Amino acid sequence: MATKTRPETLQWLGETDGCLRLIDQTLLPLECRQIDCPDVTAVWEAIKQLRVRGAPAIGVAAAYGVCVGLQTSANADRAVFDEQLKKTTAYLASSRPTAVNLFWALERMERVGMHDAARSSAERLAALLAEARAIHEEDRAMCHAIGEHGARLLASGDSVLTHCNAGGLATAEYGTALSVFFKAHEQGKKIHVFVDETRPLLQGARLTAWELMQHGVPATLICDSMAAQVMKEGRVQAVVTGADRIAANGDTANKIGTDSLAVLARAHGIPFYIAAPTSTFDTSIQSGEQIPIEQRQAEEITCGFGKQTAPDGVAVYNPAFDVTPAEYIQALITEHGVISPVNQKTIALHLSLAGEQA
Amino acid sequence: MATKTRPETLQWLGETDGCLRLIDQTLLPLECRQIDCPDVTAVWEAIKQLRVRGAPAIGVAAAYGVCVGLQTSANADRAVFDEQLKKTTAYLASSRPTAVNLFWALERMERVGMHDAARSSAERLAALLAEARAIHEEDRAMCHAIGEHGARLLASGDSVLTHCNAGGLATAEYGTALSVFFKAHEQGKKIHVFVDETRPLLQGARLTAWELMQHGVPATLICDSMAAQVMKEGRVQAVVTGADRIAANGDTANKIGTDSLAVLARAHGIPFYIAAPTSTFDTSIQSGEQIPIEQRQAEEITCGFGKQTAPDGVAVYNPAFDVTPAEYIQALITEHGVISPVNQKTIALHLSLAGEQA
Repeated sequence: MATKTRPETLQWLGETDGCLRLIDQTLLPLECRQIDCPDVTAVWEAIKQLRVRGAPAIGVAAAYGVCVGLQTSANADRAVFDEQLKKTTAYLASSRPTAVNLFWALERMERVGMHDAARSSAERLAALLAEARAIHEEDRAMCHAIGEHGARLLASGDSVLTHCNAGGLATAEYGTALSVFFKAHEQGKKIHVFVDETRPLLQGARLTAWELMQHGVPATLICDSMAAQVMKEGRVQAVVTGADRIAANGDTANKIGTDSLAVLARAHGIPFYIAAPTSTFDTSIQSGEQIPIEQRQAEEITCGFGKQTAPDGVAVYNPAFDVTPAEYIQALITEHGVISPVNQKTIALHLSLAGEQA
Repeated sequence: MATKTRPETLQWLGETDGCLRLIDQTLLPLECRQIDCPDVTAVWEAIKQLRVRGAPAIGVAAAYGVCVGLQTSANADRAVFDEQLKKTTAYLASSRPTAVNLFWALERMERVGMHDAARSSAERLAALLAEARAIHEEDRAMCHAIGEHGARLLASGDSVLTHCNAGGLATAEYGTALSVFFKAHEQGKKIHVFVDETRPLLQGARLTAWELMQHGVPATLICDSMAAQVMKEGRVQAVVTGADRIAANGDTANKIGTDSLAVLARAHGIPFYIAAPTSTFDTSIQSGEQIPIEQRQAEEITCGFGKQTAPDGVAVYNPAFDVTPAEYIQALITEHGVISPVNQKTIALHLSLAGEQA
């Protein structure tokens, strides 16, 4: 597998007394450097500063973050361990407000940590690490399954467009949208990927282009504003992106610019697909209107290239996400298959079948 | 007038023995420094190095450049003056080989310089300066007229969105799209402008945001990928951009990303306007399909602003322009009024009435 040519996105070193090692994605593509997070502050900082990013990878990082945060409590009494567990999960939850996988992973860790309180703190810590490893391994398997299901939607000779980074760097391995391309490529289909650079943080230029090149998949970088032109020239046959959160009705939150691509794809008669694990679905919210949009700092736009590129004091609007209405999504691709058409009923059915399989 | 708070884009100092002073736009928005061009080499360099940019502004700069180049020939005999005039215009024409306004202005200057050869060289030099001043003044008047016509389309309280820089820095004063906002603002209308940063060269972030702030017009900078979100949130009531070339049927070439905005504006029920002088119409071409799209260097995208942001050797597609179909344009705003609906007949009528007025 070509992914072996680069270090893993996330790696646990040691046993219960261990440390989370991750690729510092802020340094890519110029440098592929790993950093170690020996305490929970370092994990929080890595998530906050986008050293690790992408909903599933954040979930895995947070799960290991709980282990890192609890390892000093291996000999603590039950009340102290409980308190430390709650403090740690609450702290990690404060790192990225829109990331549903973060909350999902933290709740799962908290359930395991609280479960069977008769066990010793050391046993509970071991259970937490086992759970984090399970989350990591499940994510890896999930990504491969998403790729297999999604690859069936692409024909040899197709060019596709993607936005941001829904790749192996955003997950345990392979990613969601990129897994579709990797699997199609491995199946021998001739696939070419147009990559939106994805302002302001350039995850497309820095990460997606890098991952595709590492994997040997032909890729062409464009500015976000060029997607419509590429579509108009007939250069792409599908758009595939990841997702940060999917409401019960299929409305999908993803990196700012995704909804724009969906509207443009519709106007040019090109199918628009979302690839995401079922953990991305948040059926507690009925529609995208209830998804809060994280606002980020002005400096990401005004000082984005190591150089100030806008006037001092300029007002900036910097929403990190947008919501693509379900009606613009041709299909949702999950680890259990393809949902199409996309609506509340088809999603509920898919999730209930997935639940039976699980 | 608020524009008095900043120096003019282009300024002639002195009389026939003078010098061209201009804002060095490569230093904006961090520094607003004027440079003097006392000889024709300095004018050539300023155009070549994009210290002055924007088709109309380049035309004005080149016209003054001819004056600068001829002033050492005020006492020359006829043959020497003629030779120097030809040498100067040919030299200036080599600064930006694709700028149509540059050739247009230089041809106009050459015609005036050659005319009535019985006059003395000093008289001919004076005629050249008068012509350069006329080109400058005509451009200024044209921009103000575009603004007056366009401002009628905006209501107090409107927010608008613009792309790239169609401002005073690209013209003698006020610009085209920005003139619409400046005039509405001067009329006491409450106007707020969302500014696309405009990748890859960031003319929106660097120049448009600066011009609006200098003028006291409330402005908010966004990334190009955020325009759809701003529209969806009901934050803009109109989109106004400039144009590089308009075909006989109204199809309009402008900075890459413009067509994308037009499609998105349509999807969100927002009117999309183009503001441009009648000199931008090229009725020799029937439709946008005949407009060639300039492809630019990969480095504009991969190495924007002093830092490499994409992997070594990545393939890049970098079209400089796109073409917005006439059907997406609610109205064209020229110095003679507003064309709506936009089609071959309404454009032909507008241009013939404009010709009668001229």
